[in-house]
Amino acid sequence: MNVRHETRPIVPEQELISLGLQAFQGLGLNERNAQDVVEVLVLADLFGLSTHGLSRVESYGERLAVGGIAKNPDITVERAAPALVTVDGANGVGPLVGMHGLRAAMEVAREYGIGAAFVRGSNHFGPISPYSYLAAEAGFASMIGSNATTTIAPWGGSDARLGNSPLGFGVPGADGAHFMLDMAMSVVARAKIRNALKAGDAIPDTWGTDRQGRKTTDPKAALDGFLQPIGGHKGYGLALMVDMFAGVLSNAAYLTHVKSWVDAPDEPQNLGHFFILIDTRRLGAAQWLAERMRDFAAILHGSPAVEADKPVIVPGEIELANMKRQRAQGIALDPAVLELLKAHGQASAV
Amino acid sequence: MNVRHETRPIVPEQELISLGLQAFQGLGLNERNAQDVVEVLVLADLFGLSTHGLSRVESYGERLAVGGIAKNPDITVERAAPALVTVDGANGVGPLVGMHGLRAAMEVAREYGIGAAFVRGSNHFGPISPYSYLAAEAGFASMIGSNATTTIAPWGGSDARLGNSPLGFGVPGADGAHFMLDMAMSVVARAKIRNALKAGDAIPDTWGTDRQGRKTTDPKAALDGFLQPIGGHKGYGLALMVDMFAGVLSNAAYLTHVKSWVDAPDEPQNLGHFFILIDTRRLGAAQWLAERMRDFAAILHGSPAVEADKPVIVPGEIELANMKRQRAQGIALDPAVLELLKAHGQASAV
Repeated sequence: MNVRHETRPIVPEQELISLGLQAFQGLGLNERNAQDVVEVLVLADLFGLSTHGLSRVESYGERLAVGGIAKNPDITVERAAPALVTVDGANGVGPLVGMHGLRAAMEVAREYGIGAAFVRGSNHFGPISPYSYLAAEAGFASMIGSNATTTIAPWGGSDARLGNSPLGFGVPGADGAHFMLDMAMSVVARAKIRNALKAGDAIPDTWGTDRQGRKTTDPKAALDGFLQPIGGHKGYGLALMVDMFAGVLSNAAYLTHVKSWVDAPDEPQNLGHFFILIDTRRLGAAQWLAERMRDFAAILHGSPAVEADKPVIVPGEIELANMKRQRAQGIALDPAVLELLKAHGQASAV
Repeated sequence: MNVRHETRPIVPEQELISLGLQAFQGLGLNERNAQDVVEVLVLADLFGLSTHGLSRVESYGERLAVGGIAKNPDITVERAAPALVTVDGANGVGPLVGMHGLRAAMEVAREYGIGAAFVRGSNHFGPISPYSYLAAEAGFASMIGSNATTTIAPWGGSDARLGNSPLGFGVPGADGAHFMLDMAMSVVARAKIRNALKAGDAIPDTWGTDRQGRKTTDPKAALDGFLQPIGGHKGYGLALMVDMFAGVLSNAAYLTHVKSWVDAPDEPQNLGHFFILIDTRRLGAAQWLAERMRDFAAILHGSPAVEADKPVIVPGEIELANMKRQRAQGIALDPAVLELLKAHGQASAV
């Protein structure tokens, strides 16, 4: 058996933060803006979501370079109603705009018990769990979503008209064991279909459709076609909901109005996000909620596992365990990402 | 070919409302409380959701008769924070408690732009789309959910520990064409598996598991086992989210703490709901939103249909078309439901 061991550099958290800050400053962001971006992306890396972590310096960097994203935008926050804010990200880097949205929503939710920020003029804002995590750490339950470039056909339709929009939820747990659900609407990611193609395997007919929108078990046809949403019309409906809240209500682009990063890298995408936060401490004492959340998890963990080595878990457990481990041992990084961070960082030192 | 034509009585909306009011008053509710219940259930019938409409007079009636539901409860509404209310349904009929929750959330959302009601001490509150519809008619976007009796195994687990909780979303559309998504978390309803068993068909292995929690294509085994959630771990996560917002945060029962109607008909279920409403008129003029929603639907409708006779639709279209037709022509009712309504109504006249 020919086992290949990948050696990935292990970088301590503080060093990764420094590398990230230097890289984004090298790309033209001021220190404060770079801090927001790096906070989100390093949390993603800590959680083990490396495809949505600092590896994004590549795609974000390309668009910053061609002027498709503003380096230091004039982000404006307006109070539409006492507990409702609108944020114009002015085409800033997604996680920078996202952090402005999160903070604005936290501020009004703290005051009124519930609050929301509707964000327009943004870009890809990373994964959702870093925002859910920061909200949960501050005592907020959260519902957060973003729209995305169109890659999915409407249910029963045959061309890409909606995005594989991420949707996330969080609830503060006992001793930091927060519930964090972060999901896109497709049954599987495209990478999983690519793996099936490489392995020469057929795929379940629930994963994708061909270019005509018909179900297929052929990974090649599915890669030429569209991802299928979870539960068919249900996932389609959820994806629409996210786009209505993140795109329509926020006054951002939506559906086919969202520009593609690939086809138009120098044009603003005008992506939208929403952040709905609830201050759980208004509903009961922290101890009250901690006990209920502990009991909730215990009930689920108590279900006998179908496969003995795969115990039942609650969404967020894997990410939080990864964070704990990588905070102690350092973060495993793709060597190419490390090189790119250093290269952009040197630009800032010049 | 032996085609059987079902003849179902067609009842005009106003007559159905009267029958419903008399029936629930016959079951002991006062007129005002009966009005709330009937408003929700008749909307369900108008939408064509007859399994969740006035047919529920049977199960609600049984539990009212044995004292498992309070006829005229002292429902209390408390302001936990300026935009956050908690509602104690005091074990009232679900749609009655639900309407109190909806109104309380509308009141604070009108004042603060966003508002929420967390409801405890409730029972089965009907389908979600009637609440989404009433909210949308008043200009509110909505996120509404309820927990439910446990029928689903945790992902990777092998006994029923969570409910097939309904979750719904609404956004006001142009000229009443509201977006209304109302979904439970299972891939299919149990009825669809029962139909496969009757027809002697195998089922896709994504519909259900056997009693040991293992995927199965045998409808018999699936009926003895558990429904599978949409997207596997994703639908499991969504079901947990609904139970955390509807059950944990509301101080209601959750997971296995929810009592079964079947096993304990005379004990309060202490079900919970949540209503999160956003006053869309704070985000922009009604005309602004109407134009965006019209464009949103037009983009989706414009996708060439995979099957020519099945054009792409937006969630809510079917229900609203059913309502329009049945408001004009009367509502098709199961004869047994009509008899039961009349029987309970006569009790009120005695």
